[in-house]
Amino acid sequence: MTDQFAPKFDGHGLLTAVVVDSGDGAVRMVAFMDREALAKTRETGLAHFYSRSRGTLWLKGETSGNTLQVDEILVDCDQDAVVLRCRPQGPTCHTGAESCFFRRLEDDWLVPGD
Amino acid sequence: MTDQFAPKFDGHGLLTAVVVDSGDGAVRMVAFMDREALAKTRETGLAHFYSRSRGTLWLKGETSGNTLQVDEILVDCDQDAVVLRCRPQGPTCHTGAESCFFRRLEDDWLVPGD
Repeated sequence: MTDQFAPKFDGHGLLTAVVVDSGDGAVRMVAFMDREALAKTRETGLAHFYSRSRGTLWLKGETSGNTLQVDEILVDCDQDAVVLRCRPQGPTCHTGAESCFFRRLEDDWLVPGD
Repeated sequence: MTDQFAPKFDGHGLLTAVVVDSGDGAVRMVAFMDREALAKTRETGLAHFYSRSRGTLWLKGETSGNTLQVDEILVDCDQDAVVLRCRPQGPTCHTGAESCFFRRLEDDWLVPGD
């Protein structure tokens, strides 16, 4: 637990990234960052991720325009996860919902969240 | 995007789990859940995870007493990540900090968060 930033990428070279709306504090999405996505995010101020399904770098909002402007990056105790505090441009979820976490679990069903 | 709960575990049999304090909405920690950890969490109302380093089921707070009482589970659009809205008993981080995300990134250094 040094004070120098030394991100601990997992066996696939990834960190877990949680996107939080810096306005209301709500969790908007969870994704993964490799070293390049982290570097691009820091360089540009726009959240970039690594797509595990496509195997490529991914600028969030590249096609939809719904980018995430990063205000602050929080790092956890063991440096294998980050929280990106962001100002989202438009909805974050590809379904059009503000947050990807728009449903809650009730028995074995997903029902609309608050 | 069905309405039935059908968690999409990754190649290692894991979901990403983000723990949020249901009181103030702050992100407290990020961990992983396998099918068993998810089932135990739902049965007991206490957050259980899968420890990737030890390769075992893990009841958060088993030794420290700092358990997480789960109020609600939110599920994301593609069902590979969950947010656990919890009432934490005591600090969540093993360092004694309330949240594991107690530092923010500034240049290449980690400095205390707000």
